[in-house]
Amino acid sequence: MFYAKSIAVVGASPDARKLGHTILKNLIDGGFKGELYPINPKADEILGKKVYRNLIEIEGEVDLAVIVVPSKFVPSVLEDAGKKGIRNVVIITGGFREIGGEGEKLENELLEIAKKYGIRVIGPNCQGINNTHNSMCASWPLITKKGKIAIISQSGTVSAAFADWLEVENFGLSCFVSLGNKSDVNEVDLIEFFSNDENTKVISLYIEGVKDGRAFMNVAKECKKPIVVLKPGVTERGKKAVESHTKSMAGRDEVFEAACKQAKIIRARDFEEFYDFSKALAYLPKLDGNRVLIVTSSGGAAILAIDVLERHGFNVIYTPEELKEKLREVTPAHAILDNPIDLTGDANAEMYKDVIELSIELSQDYVDAILVVLGDPIEGASEVIEQCWNEKPIVVCYTGGGEVEREETKKMQSKEIPVFSTPERAAKALVALRWYYG
Amino acid sequence: MFYAKSIAVVGASPDARKLGHTILKNLIDGGFKGELYPINPKADEILGKKVYRNLIEIEGEVDLAVIVVPSKFVPSVLEDAGKKGIRNVVIITGGFREIGGEGEKLENELLEIAKKYGIRVIGPNCQGINNTHNSMCASWPLITKKGKIAIISQSGTVSAAFADWLEVENFGLSCFVSLGNKSDVNEVDLIEFFSNDENTKVISLYIEGVKDGRAFMNVAKECKKPIVVLKPGVTERGKKAVESHTKSMAGRDEVFEAACKQAKIIRARDFEEFYDFSKALAYLPKLDGNRVLIVTSSGGAAILAIDVLERHGFNVIYTPEELKEKLREVTPAHAILDNPIDLTGDANAEMYKDVIELSIELSQDYVDAILVVLGDPIEGASEVIEQCWNEKPIVVCYTGGGEVEREETKKMQSKEIPVFSTPERAAKALVALRWYYG
Repeated sequence: MFYAKSIAVVGASPDARKLGHTILKNLIDGGFKGELYPINPKADEILGKKVYRNLIEIEGEVDLAVIVVPSKFVPSVLEDAGKKGIRNVVIITGGFREIGGEGEKLENELLEIAKKYGIRVIGPNCQGINNTHNSMCASWPLITKKGKIAIISQSGTVSAAFADWLEVENFGLSCFVSLGNKSDVNEVDLIEFFSNDENTKVISLYIEGVKDGRAFMNVAKECKKPIVVLKPGVTERGKKAVESHTKSMAGRDEVFEAACKQAKIIRARDFEEFYDFSKALAYLPKLDGNRVLIVTSSGGAAILAIDVLERHGFNVIYTPEELKEKLREVTPAHAILDNPIDLTGDANAEMYKDVIELSIELSQDYVDAILVVLGDPIEGASEVIEQCWNEKPIVVCYTGGGEVEREETKKMQSKEIPVFSTPERAAKALVALRWYYG
Repeated sequence: MFYAKSIAVVGASPDARKLGHTILKNLIDGGFKGELYPINPKADEILGKKVYRNLIEIEGEVDLAVIVVPSKFVPSVLEDAGKKGIRNVVIITGGFREIGGEGEKLENELLEIAKKYGIRVIGPNCQGINNTHNSMCASWPLITKKGKIAIISQSGTVSAAFADWLEVENFGLSCFVSLGNKSDVNEVDLIEFFSNDENTKVISLYIEGVKDGRAFMNVAKECKKPIVVLKPGVTERGKKAVESHTKSMAGRDEVFEAACKQAKIIRARDFEEFYDFSKALAYLPKLDGNRVLIVTSSGGAAILAIDVLERHGFNVIYTPEELKEKLREVTPAHAILDNPIDLTGDANAEMYKDVIELSIELSQDYVDAILVVLGDPIEGASEVIEQCWNEKPIVVCYTGGGEVEREETKKMQSKEIPVFSTPERAAKALVALRWYYG
């Protein structure tokens, strides 16, 4: 499915406004290296590719068929796929279980055909799949930047927003999977797959309901990678909306919450945590304990972080005397050397470098992570963080730095260094690491 | 103080790296319309302005003196100010109570001089003041965009970040006040002042401690405008850091929390809420009840908002039949008309317009606010929102829209329409309105 070498787009269209055009175009523009077979009975060539009338006509092997034809034609396409020996299908088309009645019947029909031929189906009623590491954007929008996070989602918008934030911050994606109606392939199969996918470091899951709780628990427990989950429908009214949206049952939230704790699933309370936790777990090193040192140019921003850290069981240690003595040599007299180490408003990049380097060197035994707050327009901060990067997490918050902040943040992101825009978000990134690494 | 017509900058410097230069420059570049008197015994002209040796030498009246000279010279400058009849002083210089010992003595000395002459003092150890409505940026960075929010802060970085976010979103500031050591003027005086300042609609306060709890409560209760507060030091370790940062006593958080409830102060739990709540209260209309209608193109995003709304006592009503019937005429068959009204992924601006207009027209009696989720790249959304803007709050979340989202968001912000980047942040904006308007 995700490492297909040949793809048929059934319902490929010459009309640029149609999804059947967009998907073929994104596969081409995304640089897919395998064979592409557009299927359309009424066209000869689309986007420079030879068009086939149906799947049977194709001579070579086809690893994956992406289906975009109207719902009533989907069963016959699936029959063709089965006969052609295609074992992986993504059905974009909507108008199935989600509309009830006839749609539900049609979806059951699909499932029977798929079963008969041993075809695995993603969808229907979904937004496709994308594996950047296979240059395979069978989805929209076009995302090509290779990253470490796989996003699996029951909401097109949630995953689009997630991917967009990753793109803006230059992290990219490993894979994107739109679950749609989950008629066949669901979160359980995908967690299992991504647990073994070498290009994926974190699995980020937006779901509104879990079909098989026990299977979900088992696969999550076995998973070799962090799973970050955003699952709404916590309130009664939210549950109603879930039913109306994806016909899922949100279930009792306490049960899901307990399952997450047991299976070490990182649960995000909102979209922003969903994104931040994923980013932290994908791009920060392993955290080995709860002792944090804070290096800052802003007392206020550091205190905002401390409240979050304390509430979540972190130990904001007091600076060891040995380190304090050394720090005195490289900091101005008015700097505060208790933790937070507050370099105050006239801090510069060099000062940060000296302090962070000494802290790493002299606090091997009593510090597990360093939270760096760049609370002023500190030029050159990105180089310092890059140079100091090591096997213990350095979590960066850049705030109050205006244009300099934006430039330096971009530089860090280009090196895959995560930057957080508020002290609380940076602190919560550490919380996510702690939840996962224990 | 804030509407000064003539300002002396004591310690104005020809050296562009010094604060005494920056402040004079920001006053000039910010377009201050009154008289400016740089004071420096060793220069004749700075930035094209005639320089005076001391305050006494100035012939005209001086409404405000901004002092940037080293701490040991501050008392004599204050004496001069008193003799010259200056009644308002901002002391930027640090090295007073915050360093203990000698600094504390020096600060007491200042206070005695100020008392003798009836001078009001902001600072010392602060980042100045800025009143955009008087084109008076006696602070840094230079901020000139006129807005409705006054920020009062005990942290330079927190206020700088706050102002920066407002600037990026094109809202601007009404005033900025850096509290510094609060030797004389404190949050109580400032709340009283801004309560009557016609250019200020919301007072946003970052404080680490309140000196006089009773006075604070009284002035907050009397205040004619929303007060949004961010006050860290909630945890034990946070309180320690507060002491070390501003020598403030954070106090028992339950006491402060109760006081906020009683005085209708909107308390933000983190920096982002601090910003969002302020923006919502400054730029959204009054909220008259708890009944919300959601118009969305994304079921998932809407559910994320619903969970927040429900948790905070909102009533996400079910769409009245009368409205549903009318909506059927302007929406595609697959749209879901229960609340959330889900136009699904093929929604466009016109559809949003029809639905929002009908909702406003037909739900006068059962809806108090509309939450609009633009969950796709909806072009022209900004015009729709602008046209529909009315006396009931329309809270906009734009998410998952990529470049189109960024462009449309900018357009809305240029019309002072607040846009939130996640459904939860939009929902919490409504929560803030509800806390204030009851």
